[in-house]
Amino acid sequence: MSIITIERKVLEKNDELAARNRELFRKNKIFTANLVSSPGSGKTSIVEKTLEHFKDKLNISVIEGDVQTNLDAERVSKYGVPVVQIVTNGSCHLEAKLVQDALQNLELDDTDVLFIENVGNLVCPAAYDLGEDMKIVIASTTEGDDKPLKYPRMFLNASVLLINKIDLIPYINCNIEVLRKNALQINPKLKIFQLSCTSGEGIEKWCSWLESMVQKK
Amino acid sequence: MSIITIERKVLEKNDELAARNRELFRKNKIFTANLVSSPGSGKTSIVEKTLEHFKDKLNISVIEGDVQTNLDAERVSKYGVPVVQIVTNGSCHLEAKLVQDALQNLELDDTDVLFIENVGNLVCPAAYDLGEDMKIVIASTTEGDDKPLKYPRMFLNASVLLINKIDLIPYINCNIEVLRKNALQINPKLKIFQLSCTSGEGIEKWCSWLESMVQKK
Repeated sequence: MSIITIERKVLEKNDELAARNRELFRKNKIFTANLVSSPGSGKTSIVEKTLEHFKDKLNISVIEGDVQTNLDAERVSKYGVPVVQIVTNGSCHLEAKLVQDALQNLELDDTDVLFIENVGNLVCPAAYDLGEDMKIVIASTTEGDDKPLKYPRMFLNASVLLINKIDLIPYINCNIEVLRKNALQINPKLKIFQLSCTSGEGIEKWCSWLESMVQKK
Repeated sequence: MSIITIERKVLEKNDELAARNRELFRKNKIFTANLVSSPGSGKTSIVEKTLEHFKDKLNISVIEGDVQTNLDAERVSKYGVPVVQIVTNGSCHLEAKLVQDALQNLELDDTDVLFIENVGNLVCPAAYDLGEDMKIVIASTTEGDDKPLKYPRMFLNASVLLINKIDLIPYINCNIEVLRKNALQINPKLKIFQLSCTSGEGIEKWCSWLESMVQKK
């Protein structure tokens, strides 16, 4: 019983800090996306492809969340953009406080888009608001077509689904129409893009949409 | 501070119940494996291939853990083996109490192997002892070769690593030698098998080892 109370308190405190982050993003007209997925679905690769696409066109900053290592921050920093690594040291999700701390290291008035790459986990990050405009869930075709049904809260709380690794479809047992149908069954409002960081297919379309989101801010 | 205390209490209570489960497994000479991995790495497919291999040769029971749905239990029950589905309803890992409850539905004195398929999550299931003989971590080649470094606790707490989907190596950016090296850097004692549920490669070797574990009980 006491656990439930404390969990609620943790979430209330988190929501309070998330609201402060959100206010900062609004003031600075930053479009902020909280990228969530299983480990290895290609969050960092999608960030890399997006940075490549918008080189010198949009100011993109990145916050990387990992249980351990700064491998992802190293990958992203090669693109010459501001990047902050959060190491959660065992925790399976990012919280608003960690993002608030990370923001101290970024020039917010000079940022158009902020990607927050969450810890690879389809469960707990769904429950934590970081102050983002939206959660974008990435699902790799290699994970199969049933994940929206098995991890519904994540797909329900996301606004966009990026179906990644579509180049592997010929070699695996994943029906992309079933995956789309399952995702829309959980969340009929989900906007879906299909892409491949290997072949480049679909990257253009995703980036156009992202640009339109920035223009709306 | 109080959160830490309560978490410790939760883990202590869990360890107590896990010890009771372990005693039950020991009495009934059951080899119990706690299968842990990211979502979509192929835990259920490996269980299916193993059931196929040992048809009429070993008595295998399965406990399926999922946040939602009984899709995995449906898949496994087609093989005519006893299977219990645990729906955690939001929780990102199995706990010993849930396994204790599930065991009420199995004939333990008639079981050689018990597979407990945990919730797809590379973080929290590492912390919860279910009473198993060992944790077996599955890593799909499609998740990349850096996961042992990014989720070290899981690879440290596991005794065996199954590298799955090796048939996809020609199409993806995963260096299997780097993956092995990273895994052994975290846990030098890790026993590693490479396999593919699609091509069948490596299944025989994994099953032979599993059989030798049963004979030791």
